[in-house]
Amino acid sequence: MIRFNNDYSSGAIPEILEALKETNETRYESYGLDELCEEAADLIRSACGCSGKDADVHFAVGGTQANFLVISSALRSFQSVIAADTSHIHCHETGAVENTGHKIEVIFGKDGKLSSEQVRAKADAYRRSSIPEHITQPKLVYLSFPTETGTLYSKSELTSIREVCLEYGLYLFVDGARMAYGLGSEKNDLTLADFARLTDAFTVGGTKCGALFGEAVVLTHPALCEDFRSVIKQHGAMLAKGWLSGLQFSVLFRNGKYLELGKYACGLASLLRNAFLEKGIPLCPDSPTNQLFVRLTRKQKEIIEKDFIFEPEDESEDGTTVVRFCTSWYTKPEDVSVLRQAILELPQ
Amino acid sequence: MIRFNNDYSSGAIPEILEALKETNETRYESYGLDELCEEAADLIRSACGCSGKDADVHFAVGGTQANFLVISSALRSFQSVIAADTSHIHCHETGAVENTGHKIEVIFGKDGKLSSEQVRAKADAYRRSSIPEHITQPKLVYLSFPTETGTLYSKSELTSIREVCLEYGLYLFVDGARMAYGLGSEKNDLTLADFARLTDAFTVGGTKCGALFGEAVVLTHPALCEDFRSVIKQHGAMLAKGWLSGLQFSVLFRNGKYLELGKYACGLASLLRNAFLEKGIPLCPDSPTNQLFVRLTRKQKEIIEKDFIFEPEDESEDGTTVVRFCTSWYTKPEDVSVLRQAILELPQ
Amino acid sequence: MIRFNNDYSSGAIPEILEALKETNETRYESYGLDELCEEAADLIRSACGCSGKDADVHFAVGGTQANFLVISSALRSFQSVIAADTSHIHCHETGAVENTGHKIEVIFGKDGKLSSEQVRAKADAYRRSSIPEHITQPKLVYLSFPTETGTLYSKSELTSIREVCLEYGLYLFVDGARMAYGLGSEKNDLTLADFARLTDAFTVGGTKCGALFGEAVVLTHPALCEDFRSVIKQHGAMLAKGWLSGLQFSVLFRNGKYLELGKYACGLASLLRNAFLEKGIPLCPDSPTNQLFVRLTRKQKEIIEKDFIFEPEDESEDGTTVVRFCTSWYTKPEDVSVLRQAILELPQ
Amino acid sequence: MIRFNNDYSSGAIPEILEALKETNETRYESYGLDELCEEAADLIRSACGCSGKDADVHFAVGGTQANFLVISSALRSFQSVIAADTSHIHCHETGAVENTGHKIEVIFGKDGKLSSEQVRAKADAYRRSSIPEHITQPKLVYLSFPTETGTLYSKSELTSIREVCLEYGLYLFVDGARMAYGLGSEKNDLTLADFARLTDAFTVGGTKCGALFGEAVVLTHPALCEDFRSVIKQHGAMLAKGWLSGLQFSVLFRNGKYLELGKYACGLASLLRNAFLEKGIPLCPDSPTNQLFVRLTRKQKEIIEKDFIFEPEDESEDGTTVVRFCTSWYTKPEDVSVLRQAILELPQ
Repeated sequence: MIRFNNDYSSGAIPEILEALKETNETRYESYGLDELCEEAADLIRSACGCSGKDADVHFAVGGTQANFLVISSALRSFQSVIAADTSHIHCHETGAVENTGHKIEVIFGKDGKLSSEQVRAKADAYRRSSIPEHITQPKLVYLSFPTETGTLYSKSELTSIREVCLEYGLYLFVDGARMAYGLGSEKNDLTLADFARLTDAFTVGGTKCGALFGEAVVLTHPALCEDFRSVIKQHGAMLAKGWLSGLQFSVLFRNGKYLELGKYACGLASLLRNAFLEKGIPLCPDSPTNQLFVRLTRKQKEIIEKDFIFEPEDESEDGTTVVRFCTSWYTKPEDVSVLRQAILELPQ
Repeated sequence: MIRFNNDYSSGAIPEILEALKETNETRYESYGLDELCEEAADLIRSACGCSGKDADVHFAVGGTQANFLVISSALRSFQSVIAADTSHIHCHETGAVENTGHKIEVIFGKDGKLSSEQVRAKADAYRRSSIPEHITQPKLVYLSFPTETGTLYSKSELTSIREVCLEYGLYLFVDGARMAYGLGSEKNDLTLADFARLTDAFTVGGTKCGALFGEAVVLTHPALCEDFRSVIKQHGAMLAKGWLSGLQFSVLFRNGKYLELGKYACGLASLLRNAFLEKGIPLCPDSPTNQLFVRLTRKQKEIIEKDFIFEPEDESEDGTTVVRFCTSWYTKPEDVSVLRQAILELPQ
Repeated sequence: MIRFNNDYSSGAIPEILEALKETNETRYESYGLDELCEEAADLIRSACGCSGKDADVHFAVGGTQANFLVISSALRSFQSVIAADTSHIHCHETGAVENTGHKIEVIFGKDGKLSSEQVRAKADAYRRSSIPEHITQPKLVYLSFPTETGTLYSKSELTSIREVCLEYGLYLFVDGARMAYGLGSEKNDLTLADFARLTDAFTVGGTKCGALFGEAVVLTHPALCEDFRSVIKQHGAMLAKGWLSGLQFSVLFRNGKYLELGKYACGLASLLRNAFLEKGIPLCPDSPTNQLFVRLTRKQKEIIEKDFIFEPEDESEDGTTVVRFCTSWYTKPEDVSVLRQAILELPQ
Repeated sequence: MIRFNNDYSSGAIPEILEALKETNETRYESYGLDELCEEAADLIRSACGCSGKDADVHFAVGGTQANFLVISSALRSFQSVIAADTSHIHCHETGAVENTGHKIEVIFGKDGKLSSEQVRAKADAYRRSSIPEHITQPKLVYLSFPTETGTLYSKSELTSIREVCLEYGLYLFVDGARMAYGLGSEKNDLTLADFARLTDAFTVGGTKCGALFGEAVVLTHPALCEDFRSVIKQHGAMLAKGWLSGLQFSVLFRNGKYLELGKYACGLASLLRNAFLEKGIPLCPDSPTNQLFVRLTRKQKEIIEKDFIFEPEDESEDGTTVVRFCTSWYTKPEDVSVLRQAILELPQ
């Protein structure tokens, strides 16, 4: 069985394991106050075209944690998050945002994305409300890059959303758990510098992008920077051996490694996408990143699942099933070839 | 200007003010441990066909409070509420349920109501989930009687939902902020005894049904009864002068007063409903209780709002507007006559 | 049996009941947006020497609620409250403040009071901490006026605390659940105008001071004013019939009634205090307000409890017990005479 | 400079790094559902003399996280934790427990420990309370083994506390962040099997005891086991690559490694303790584990801090300072020799 079910079922890039070994006997300051965290923060800022006064960089252990840290830190109790119906915080985090006290105001997006018009409509409904205190106050827009369905916001789309946010006083927060696979896509026209410029906070995922674990949290809005370490510690997100995060992100951001990992996985996904297209198997939606969602007939699914592990959704009433295939930094080209061949041999 | 905008813009039934005056110099035990609270609880239990061992009765000050007290007391942090998209807790309570840490899993209902099939589908999706810990665990079904759009569950519908709840281990909680207007409707076939038998908790509204303020909370499930007074106190919902609640509900539940108030308001609403029907003005949806939702043309709306206060929603793109007219225990028959006449004189 | 156990076991001053009756058929705007709330706010501001731009006035139903509304609205998640070990929020509110997510940093006070030195020490410990993110950040000082043991802060003491708060960026919040009995004490040198000038927020109690229920919340710090109505609504503290609060505080603040009620009760308490002193019964501590704490021998306690209801603490190992006697706006002078006589006849 | 300031400033035991390397290309199930987590759980259960039906074993990333996961999962909103004034949850976790909504009822312990009498007194005060709903309900006793001051509970002490817990229906939870150094002490008479038998939940620390990170959470009370994975996920404590925890604890619990690490560090600490005793430097308190607290004169402190890093508390008014020296699994014997010599050469 060959695994294409997700992008977090293998360890880390070898350079990280080597760095762990090399530094194992070094004694570091704890709680993230060490030189490796400083180096990683500098490297990330540099990749973002930022200096230390433009952006704070912190590290969380996982994505759910990074999301609720930023959101709960940013909001007062009656303020809410605007997010897509397919968003990770709404669908896959066990109500973690609500557990910190905040409602998610859901928007039904297209291909997993919010439009600036939808954000405006939501913000405007609050502004026009005669008794606004009966509803939550939208204060932060959450979006994912790439989205949970593998799609990407263009620079133009992100800029439009940003403008609405500025007009209505909303924070813009981007969940970049798969940031490498967004940046590494052929279709992408956004850079980390764009995210630093256009958002108030975003994450740069390590867990799915070459590290053992860890998400970097980049904060550019001064209000979000204040006392963020207290928020991290209170929520159990501050590693005693904080340098483990710093070490991993230092390795990922030296010499363009992070972007390289993303490109690699997107390239492999592209080969699979072409095979599906060639075969006339529907893409749901079409994705230019490392996650491919396709609709298989029951027969096709039965054949493929003999040799490959992938992630199926519920079967539709017509007997077809949308399934996800993921490539990643650790996917082997030969495994892609085998899957590609299998796709091309599928019955219609 | 005559007010039909809501059912909470006037004081209390005269009997309540008289009772306040009569008891003003009596010294009572505080925090709801007085004889008036005991009497009210007994009267409500009696109206529910319950004895003291079947049901606990507590008092909250308002509806939002009553809702989050019951819900937050019933649920563990990762458990969620199943509720309709139109539900009060989802739309009009400033994210109060989420503020206590719980997600609301929204179902798009018909005429403001959930169906047992919808509840089953939601509960079943959790049960069938391969990694359920990534999503919230539905544990309580919230519904309103009457609903926020004035409609009613039938005994058969409520029984079906109850059966699903029992099958999936869900609590069933009914928000009865307008209970009097549900019980008092000609179309209703449910009794308080049915609610006591078919639900785990429900409220009996006072604020909108004759009292100055107050909601009775009836708890029938033993797990919900435990230490509920601590929950009340912790959330600032325990009146020092608790007898004020007991007094009001005692008055409302002596001699069938509560039901009488409901019938009165429903009867007046029925006159208005007939006028709308006669005129061909669409009911959205058709309601057998004290709230009427109708779709007016811009012209009709402009005429009516010269003399009457009502509650409009946003104007639709076609220029029509859905508006709400409420009757209540304090609505004057002569005001209904005037409005009735005005409706009948509207242009098409 | 004559009750001296607390100051919240009787209804309201007659003027309030009359006002309720007079306005019972008037139709008001709901949710506190009515003219009675406006009048009450204006009267309270006027009593505080404030204009509308200096102070916002809101109404809560009870004291626990008022406390956690202000505190939770003011603080970020990792910020804490500095309060005395005897404080109401620490001892008698079922962990309501903690339930909103905030730690109370306890200081052991003298006679129920914090000193400015103690507050400074606490704030300074945080400032000097090498890794402050491991501890909570003190951000709000809570004190009660009168305190839970009946004592008063002097203007000089309050001013000193205020100066420390300004120096360390702490909010100062005063719980005035018994404000009338503080203002009405012969020993008091503070005015409502002083509280408005020296604090960021304070409450003016109605429940224990002549009303059926209700606490006025006066906010003078701009940051605390922002969106406070959303906080109220979310926590179930917004009465649908908000004018009930406005009506009561309007009555209390017309013609100096509130102060008069306080003076009345303090005067009666003073008579009792003199009797205890005359008898050599220890005051624990000595209180110039409506609550008297005295240490009775077992014999004395047994005699007094035959005819009077009061509030005992746990018996000490030496067999004595500290007990509380309360006077209030509704205490009858003849009852005080009887108790006075009984005290004077006690054995040593 | 030689570091003795804490036990978490170096990487992991070499066996862990080797295992990481060996398994780096293996594809595992994610979210802790892998065979390494299963192996680790089995090894820990075996060390506890438990079978799968006796105890659930989960993994958290850090100690603060493990503590609030267990506590918040166990308690209803109005329930509180009984803990010592020196406890980690009270002093060093940024109010994390309060942030989950729960008050900590503080007991002033001796040498960092609670006594069964103190626990009984607290629980009994609640039981005897006339209106218990005004105070929090103690429901869980938290204690640390070893304590934050390096001391140990004896089997007899723990058994006494357990008996009180059973009598009053309290959960008993032991924070074992430094469990290895408790088990490894010469003075210790408790085993993991004792903890499994005498508590409802306890943690087995990895972060300070040989791992890169991670705490094992052992749950023996059935009520605490239910849906604990949902609690973990909701609080961002579930690693996508969960096997990283399983791998580390498997290594630690194979062949008695964990106990060996503890013994090693305690042995080195004992050498230092003897030096302090020999020199007449006061132990505050006397500790049989890897943390030593001693009171140094200003002169002594100045001499020692030239070559060694340790953790000082605030200087006392008499100019002395209590400081902490830690040994650990990675402390080098030669460094201990150097420090030992330095101690012996200190002036009085």
